[in-house]
Amino acid sequence: MAPKVEALIAKNDDAQKMALQQPQPPPKTHIEISKYTKRVVLKTVLNREDAGFGLINERVVVGGWVKSAKEVRKQQTLPKPEHDQPEPTGSKDVTCAEILQTRMPIFRSFMKLFGVGGHGAKDSALSLAQKVQQPVVSTMTLQVSDGSCVASLQVIVDSTLAPPGRIMLSGTCILVEGVLQQPATSGKHSIELKAEKVLHLGVVEDHEKYPLSKKRLPLHSLRNWAHFRPRTTTVASIARIRHGLTHATHVFFQDNGFLYVQVPVITATDSEGFSDKFHVTTLLNKASKEGSSTKSSGLKDVSLESIKASLKEKSTRVEELRRTDSNREALLAAVQDLKKTNELASQLEAKEKREKAKEASLVKTDRLDFLDDFFSCQAFLTVSGRLHLESYACALGNVYSFGPRFKAETSQSTRHVSEMWMFEAEMAFAELEEAMNCATDLLKHLCKKVKEDCAEDMKFVLKRVDENIVHRLQSVQLSEFEKIPYCKAIDVLKQVKEKNFATNIEWGVPLTEEHESYLADEIYKKSVIIYDYPKEVKPFYVRQNDDGKTVAAFDVIVPKVGAVIRGSQNEERIKMLTTRIQEVGLSSDQYEWYVDLRRHGTTKHAGFSLNFDLIVLMATGISDIHDVIPFPRSYGKLNN
Amino acid sequence: MAPKVEALIAKNDDAQKMALQQPQPPPKTHIEISKYTKRVVLKTVLNREDAGFGLINERVVVGGWVKSAKEVRKQQTLPKPEHDQPEPTGSKDVTCAEILQTRMPIFRSFMKLFGVGGHGAKDSALSLAQKVQQPVVSTMTLQVSDGSCVASLQVIVDSTLAPPGRIMLSGTCILVEGVLQQPATSGKHSIELKAEKVLHLGVVEDHEKYPLSKKRLPLHSLRNWAHFRPRTTTVASIARIRHGLTHATHVFFQDNGFLYVQVPVITATDSEGFSDKFHVTTLLNKASKEGSSTKSSGLKDVSLESIKASLKEKSTRVEELRRTDSNREALLAAVQDLKKTNELASQLEAKEKREKAKEASLVKTDRLDFLDDFFSCQAFLTVSGRLHLESYACALGNVYSFGPRFKAETSQSTRHVSEMWMFEAEMAFAELEEAMNCATDLLKHLCKKVKEDCAEDMKFVLKRVDENIVHRLQSVQLSEFEKIPYCKAIDVLKQVKEKNFATNIEWGVPLTEEHESYLADEIYKKSVIIYDYPKEVKPFYVRQNDDGKTVAAFDVIVPKVGAVIRGSQNEERIKMLTTRIQEVGLSSDQYEWYVDLRRHGTTKHAGFSLNFDLIVLMATGISDIHDVIPFPRSYGKLNN
Repeated sequence: MAPKVEALIAKNDDAQKMALQQPQPPPKTHIEISKYTKRVVLKTVLNREDAGFGLINERVVVGGWVKSAKEVRKQQTLPKPEHDQPEPTGSKDVTCAEILQTRMPIFRSFMKLFGVGGHGAKDSALSLAQKVQQPVVSTMTLQVSDGSCVASLQVIVDSTLAPPGRIMLSGTCILVEGVLQQPATSGKHSIELKAEKVLHLGVVEDHEKYPLSKKRLPLHSLRNWAHFRPRTTTVASIARIRHGLTHATHVFFQDNGFLYVQVPVITATDSEGFSDKFHVTTLLNKASKEGSSTKSSGLKDVSLESIKASLKEKSTRVEELRRTDSNREALLAAVQDLKKTNELASQLEAKEKREKAKEASLVKTDRLDFLDDFFSCQAFLTVSGRLHLESYACALGNVYSFGPRFKAETSQSTRHVSEMWMFEAEMAFAELEEAMNCATDLLKHLCKKVKEDCAEDMKFVLKRVDENIVHRLQSVQLSEFEKIPYCKAIDVLKQVKEKNFATNIEWGVPLTEEHESYLADEIYKKSVIIYDYPKEVKPFYVRQNDDGKTVAAFDVIVPKVGAVIRGSQNEERIKMLTTRIQEVGLSSDQYEWYVDLRRHGTTKHAGFSLNFDLIVLMATGISDIHDVIPFPRSYGKLNN
Repeated sequence: MAPKVEALIAKNDDAQKMALQQPQPPPKTHIEISKYTKRVVLKTVLNREDAGFGLINERVVVGGWVKSAKEVRKQQTLPKPEHDQPEPTGSKDVTCAEILQTRMPIFRSFMKLFGVGGHGAKDSALSLAQKVQQPVVSTMTLQVSDGSCVASLQVIVDSTLAPPGRIMLSGTCILVEGVLQQPATSGKHSIELKAEKVLHLGVVEDHEKYPLSKKRLPLHSLRNWAHFRPRTTTVASIARIRHGLTHATHVFFQDNGFLYVQVPVITATDSEGFSDKFHVTTLLNKASKEGSSTKSSGLKDVSLESIKASLKEKSTRVEELRRTDSNREALLAAVQDLKKTNELASQLEAKEKREKAKEASLVKTDRLDFLDDFFSCQAFLTVSGRLHLESYACALGNVYSFGPRFKAETSQSTRHVSEMWMFEAEMAFAELEEAMNCATDLLKHLCKKVKEDCAEDMKFVLKRVDENIVHRLQSVQLSEFEKIPYCKAIDVLKQVKEKNFATNIEWGVPLTEEHESYLADEIYKKSVIIYDYPKEVKPFYVRQNDDGKTVAAFDVIVPKVGAVIRGSQNEERIKMLTTRIQEVGLSSDQYEWYVDLRRHGTTKHAGFSLNFDLIVLMATGISDIHDVIPFPRSYGKLNN
């Protein structure tokens, strides 16, 4: 049943590495200057086929953050042992600048002004006295990364250029000008920069408080420092892979003639009908200002009835005056008076209408007073853009979107966040089969492209995160997906003896993550597409099958990751759709526009949502979604 | 001062058209089948260099929506005049199917089952009696569009294939199989489709209620029908241009080494510090459920003090029992009791802590009880992603983002919506000048690319929307932008005599849209960059200039459109930043993470936000932003 994936993919590491080796463009003879930053981006030096060798003697400016540092005293012959956390004080850190600072207070202020020595001077009152006894000049070897690639550039800085106590701390930002040279000792670097000028020094103010000062922190402990973690090699690699995958997905849709449509994030439509949603509101801003607004109109104590009576009276009086042809001034005054009363009446009427509508809405929704809200109705953050996308598909053919989608789920799993980025596609004149084919092709395309486009980062991931990642990607790319209807999935899972699932399996229950991964990881050992789900477990808009029980929905389960794509052919028959909207108890008003698409020029159409964050998990082997999203949001967690 | 833009751009229409003519790829000899929809996409037929001529005699399936239709009776020799709004009844609409429907009720049900004749039968009880008198077979000529290009395909359908009364209404969706042929009469079409099978017919249920049944509705009246309007030629063209511009922007950033980062939409940080924001909350869902939750813990009537006293007592008792070595059971019971009380105490303590925190927060924010909210704090929809982007720039170098940004502005102008799509860029080791250069290059790139990549749609826009659009795009592309500091802008505007601005001009006031457009449209007659604004009119994070009064912010104003880009070099000096946060009265807690980026390894950095919706205005000449956004959201307006 499950063909041997192993047969399809090579098993040794070399094969994985081979899969990552792509033809490189020939090295340029001249250095590429980054157009908008006046510096050379490190990958243009370090990722050359000659590893930068051809650039020796070039003068360049590079910028980046210090990853680690060593110091060698010029007077000494033996190199010091590596110290990743150099102390701000201590004999080895003494520099000309510091000496000058202790001796000449003016020079200290001067250094402070340039932001390079101010902090270090504080804690050195006593110890400097000792240091001055034995002044030394030293050479620092810094490993500097600018986030453009995995590798760091080795930068040699003489202590006369910058105080070691400040520049050597990991996390320090430097911009230096220098000359590229061959390293004196042969090692893993085939090129290094001899600094001649330090153009900028962004110090680490408090080494103890800098969260990345410890090396190789586990990913979960970096989560509290979302704003710093892209400075780690792993999170930087993930960010570049995420970029590569985004680009590759756009390319796939572009190449297949899909138009990119920006669907809204704020919506009045509850797309799935059963998800927990976020309200978007300005009511909470206004809360305190309320109350006064209704009073200010000054209409409070006048009843519409009395006004109407007076209106009638006044109108009769005008008629009378007109008929009796009495004096013009009296008539004008009476007309003026009538006009005013009329105005008041219409204001009052509007107010009453509004209040009635308010009341009606309160009764109807049993909720707050959303007529006062920004949009005069309830507004939510969208759960899925597919409904809006349908409108564009039913005019332009194949369309797709990419944007954040929201669920107010309190689950704290490794697969759930409140704000997820999704690619969504919708195709007119397409049915379930085509949507499944498109989803399959897209997944295979991404597995292929991430290996090609992010080869260097994938090598790092292979080494540091998941030694089987390339195997798995190749398996998704090369093996046929197993396609089974929901009923078969149930049958297969029922026969499982060696595992007790938390939820009992029988026809009609939604498959849990546990079920899904068991099918893909244990039973079929490859990607699985499950389709034709019971209508109760899928959104109201999915097209009903002829059996009356199932609907044309599908999920694509990737081993070790889960359901990365969920799709469906959506109901194009108006009667079926309106019936279903009633059945699940949704407000038909809210979906009027959506039903409209079936009322006028309907067509079959199908599409899917790709959970992009899970795709990054798939490509990197990272196990928790919180580690691949720049600033993840989840229940109770919002720090920035 | 303002060089003559006119000199730079050719003035006649031919030149504009020339600018749009791009080399076309050689026509493929075979038809391209759309991979996932089993149909041929019309642009692959109609946009060929030979206008489809080389595909004659090919059998194809095409799908789309009827734009207009004509009918020719086979018995008659003269063609009928064009009728864009054919009546559902009337002699010319009689078909075999309808005749059969009146005569044989069983056939009617049969037709209904296939969804083609059900509705039409209703209103034809009497009139059909007349029709039956003169049965005719006719040929319909439909103009069908599938949204892939401006042009429509002419489809010839015999009335034996489908009832004219249903298929000829504009808005009808059809999927037909047929053979491409040369039209019998020479006209604007060089190819047409002779239908042989109607595979799908999505009727217009109620012609009167279909909003697009009238031809050439003005854009503003289409706004109530956002879900249908992409079916109009103009909105479809805008959608394709929007797609082209999105793609071109991604390409620009990609080519310049920017990494695409998905910054969050939900945020705890109020990025600008002075915009009206939307709350994101689940408090409104819970409102009714409240109250009960605090009671359910059953801790209400026990004071922490009494518990602590009892804890001490019980602890003493356990000690006593242990010391006196009394019976084991009594000891165990006492220990158990102690444990329970201990637990209760810690629960109570946690509760009190929580309540104190709540109180503190209530006092502090003078607002609702956000500790109970989903994120346990106030959450907003982001106004700008630049702050979060800075974190990634200060690790990875050049980064950009594309996503929705939100302002709860009640303004109803042609330039404001509540949900805007923005491209944002941030560059480490860059200053104001580089950000301005990058912004300028991007704009010029977009003007160039939209003409190249969307040539066909731009021709349509030129003809139907704005006859000067290509001139203006060329002007932006080719002319130098005028770069003036804010103080000069003020001086120049002060000297304007021929116009009274709504807001008086003097140093320190924010420039209004009126000022901005006067500078670009009337004074310089080209794109203008204004920079070095007074610090009071720009966000707190913009870098302060040495004069202590101005900050390194800039805006790019494009003629007829307005400020499409706003950018700045952001403050990298921690002291300056924290002082500014205090000055403008923001909560320093909220910005702790942001200040952190300056505390550890800070660097100069600069960037900008490009209002993508305005870019679409710029490229199309459309005057209202609501017409270029698929589903615009603004004050009081949220229909879907």
